[in-house]
Amino acid sequence: MLPADPRLPVNLRREAAALASTWSPRVVAEVNGQFVKVARVRGEFVWHAHEGEDELFLVLDGRLRLRFEDRTVELGPGDCAVVPRGVRHNPQCDGEVLLALFEPKATAHTGDVVSDRARSIEEQLR
Amino acid sequence: MLPADPRLPVNLRREAAALASTWSPRVVAEVNGQFVKVARVRGEFVWHAHEGEDELFLVLDGRLRLRFEDRTVELGPGDCAVVPRGVRHNPQCDGEVLLALFEPKATAHTGDVVSDRARSIEEQLR
Repeated sequence: MLPADPRLPVNLRREAAALASTWSPRVVAEVNGQFVKVARVRGEFVWHAHEGEDELFLVLDGRLRLRFEDRTVELGPGDCAVVPRGVRHNPQCDGEVLLALFEPKATAHTGDVVSDRARSIEEQLR
Repeated sequence: MLPADPRLPVNLRREAAALASTWSPRVVAEVNGQFVKVARVRGEFVWHAHEGEDELFLVLDGRLRLRFEDRTVELGPGDCAVVPRGVRHNPQCDGEVLLALFEPKATAHTGDVVSDRARSIEEQLR
């Protein structure tokens, strides 16, 4: 849920840790038509791409592997990386990972893939 | 400087800590026409506003006060806050603070204020 006043501090790690479900991003801030979301993840997501938007991953806690078709990069706490638009990727991790995501308001987090992992923007704004 | 491949991890805290000068943001990533910048700051900046853009502050280390005309908010590590477009603000801190900023590529970091603190985008991309 967006804070009533966008100037009020939001602790990304605390918001991510408080999420009841894994792979269910929650919107915590809005800036220039982009959403800042937090997520708590574990295991593997789904291979997908976002055709029209880049997606920034920022790891808050744990270690996340971003698998691409030609390489895999590993992000630790404080590391960020950008998945360019159109690039197929699949986030994975062994233990639990807390992360923040920066993406346009319109981005579906499963991209072009229809998945039961998909959460609507309305769900993400709750 | 932007990484050669945007998918390569960038550690925000390490990039901010490595900056030679305070109040001289450095661009470390680009996502959907927005820049992610890091900065190392100490003391007080200047009162200013960005007429057309929101600005997100994310504190990586230390404690930052965001002064507004009607209130002051304090951000600790992992806290973020958004300064809405047109809102006058002045970042301040006692000790040193490492932070990340998310703002459109066009944003001048001193906003509407002509200041010797202003750094050109070319300087911020070095």
